[in-house]
Amino acid sequence: MDNVSLMLDTYPRDLGTIDREKLIECIQACFECAQVCTACADACLSEDHLPNLTKCIRACLDCSDICSSVGNVLSRHTAYDANLVRAVLLACEAVCRACAKACKPHARHHEQCRICFEACRRCAAACRELAATLG
Amino acid sequence: MDNVSLMLDTYPRDLGTIDREKLIECIQACFECAQVCTACADACLSEDHLPNLTKCIRACLDCSDICSSVGNVLSRHTAYDANLVRAVLLACEAVCRACAKACKPHARHHEQCRICFEACRRCAAACRELAATLG
Amino acid sequence: MDNVSLMLDTYPRDLGTIDREKLIECIQACFECAQVCTACADACLSEDHLPNLTKCIRACLDCSDICSSVGNVLSRHTAYDANLVRAVLLACEAVCRACAKACKPHARHHEQCRICFEACRRCAAACRELAATLG
Amino acid sequence: MDNVSLMLDTYPRDLGTIDREKLIECIQACFECAQVCTACADACLSEDHLPNLTKCIRACLDCSDICSSVGNVLSRHTAYDANLVRAVLLACEAVCRACAKACKPHARHHEQCRICFEACRRCAAACRELAATLG
Repeated sequence: MDNVSLMLDTYPRDLGTIDREKLIECIQACFECAQVCTACADACLSEDHLPNLTKCIRACLDCSDICSSVGNVLSRHTAYDANLVRAVLLACEAVCRACAKACKPHARHHEQCRICFEACRRCAAACRELAATLG
Repeated sequence: MDNVSLMLDTYPRDLGTIDREKLIECIQACFECAQVCTACADACLSEDHLPNLTKCIRACLDCSDICSSVGNVLSRHTAYDANLVRAVLLACEAVCRACAKACKPHARHHEQCRICFEACRRCAAACRELAATLG
Repeated sequence: MDNVSLMLDTYPRDLGTIDREKLIECIQACFECAQVCTACADACLSEDHLPNLTKCIRACLDCSDICSSVGNVLSRHTAYDANLVRAVLLACEAVCRACAKACKPHARHHEQCRICFEACRRCAAACRELAATLG
Repeated sequence: MDNVSLMLDTYPRDLGTIDREKLIECIQACFECAQVCTACADACLSEDHLPNLTKCIRACLDCSDICSSVGNVLSRHTAYDANLVRAVLLACEAVCRACAKACKPHARHHEQCRICFEACRRCAAACRELAATLG
C-alpha cells in the first residue's frame, strides 16, 4: 500500500508532532490485518475441525472490524487529538493481541492462522509503537 | 432497534456476567450514533459556513467508523474477554466525547449538530456504564 | 432509530425527487439488518450443528458489511446521483436476498435465523422499493 | 498487500471458476481505494477552496465505505454465488467511477485528488474485469 505514504505527502497542513514513518506503518498494518482477518475467518469456516476454531473466527471478525475503522481514523489527520488517537490505538492493540493469541494454537496446522497470527502481532506492535510517540 | 434485544435472547450459550440491559443499550447507542454522525457530517458539508465545521465533520467521521465497529464487536459475544471489551468501550467513549465536544459549539445554530451532540453523549455514557460493569 | 427521520429534517438543502418515507425506511432497515446479521453469525457460531450453518454464517457476514456501508451511503445525500444509488441498492437487495435464502432453512430450528430471515427480507424489499422510485 | 495472495493460497476448498489473479487484484484495489478515498476526503477538508470540494468529499466517503465492504465480501469465498458477487462488483464499479469523475476536475490542482482519481479508476477497472470473468 504505497499510496498510504503518497497520500500523507499531499496533506496540505502540518501533521503536528506525530511520527510520520510509524504512522504510515500503522495505517498499512491496520488495513493489511483487516483483510487477513476477514480471510482467516473465512478459511477457518471451511475447515473440517470447525468447532475448534470458533474462538479464532470470532477474534478474527472483531479484529477485522476494529482494524478497519482504526485504519480510517489514522488516515484522517485528527492526530492533534492525542487522547483520541491513543485510545483507539490501545483498543486496536488489544484486539490484535487477542486475535494473535486465538490464532497461535492453530498456526502449526492451519497456514491461514499462521499468517493471521503474524499480521496481528505486527499490527499490535505498530499500534503500540505509534501510541508511544504521542507523548 | 428492538431486534438487538430479540437477538440477544436467541444466543444459545451463557452471556457470562455482562449486564444484559446495559449491553442492549450500548449496542443500540453505537448503531444510532454511527448513523447520526454520518448524517451530521453530510449535513455540515452542505452548510454555508463550511470552513467553521471541518473539525466537527472529521470528528463525526471518526465517531461513525468507531461506533459502527464497536457495535459489531458488542453484537458478538466475546464478552468473556473483559479486557478486550473494556479497551474498545474506552476507545468508543473517547471518540464519542470528542465528537460531542466538536458538535456542541454548533448545536445552537445547526440542528444536526444538536442531535449529534445528544447521540454522542448518550453513546459515551452507555459505553462508560457498560465498561463499569465488567469488573 | 427515530433519529434517521430527525436527521433528514435537518438537511439544509433540497433532497431532490427521492421518496422521503422510503429513504427513511431503507436507512433504518440497512442498519437493523447489519446488526441482526452480525448477531446471527455469532449465535450460529455457538450452535452444536455448526457445520450445517457455515453457508448461513458467510451470507450473514457479507450482508452485514454491505448493509452497513449502504446505510452510510444513503445517509449522505448523494441521492442526486440516481445511477450510483440504484447500483448500491441493487447490490444490497442481492446480498439481503442471498442471506434470507441461506437463513430460511434454519428458521424453524434456530430463532436467530428466523429473525435474520425477516430482517433481510424487509431490507431487500426496502431497497427494491426505494430503487423503484428513482425513475 | 502481498498477504491477499498468500491468504488465497491457504483456502482449504476449491475456489470454483473465479479468475484467481483478477480476484487478487480486485481485493487489493478495493482496500487500496478505501484508504486513499478516506485520506483524500480528509486532505480536501483541509484545503482553502473547500466549498468547491464538497462533491468530491462526499464521493470519496461513499467510495471508501463501499470499497471496504466489497473488499471484505471478495475476501470471503462466497464466489460460488455469481449473482451476488456480480451485483456487489457492479455497485463498487459505479461508486469508483463516480468518485473518479468527482476527483478528476481537481487532479491538476490537488495531488490527493490526482492519486485518488487513479486509485478509483484502477479499482473500477478491476471490478469490471473480475465481473466479466463470472460468466
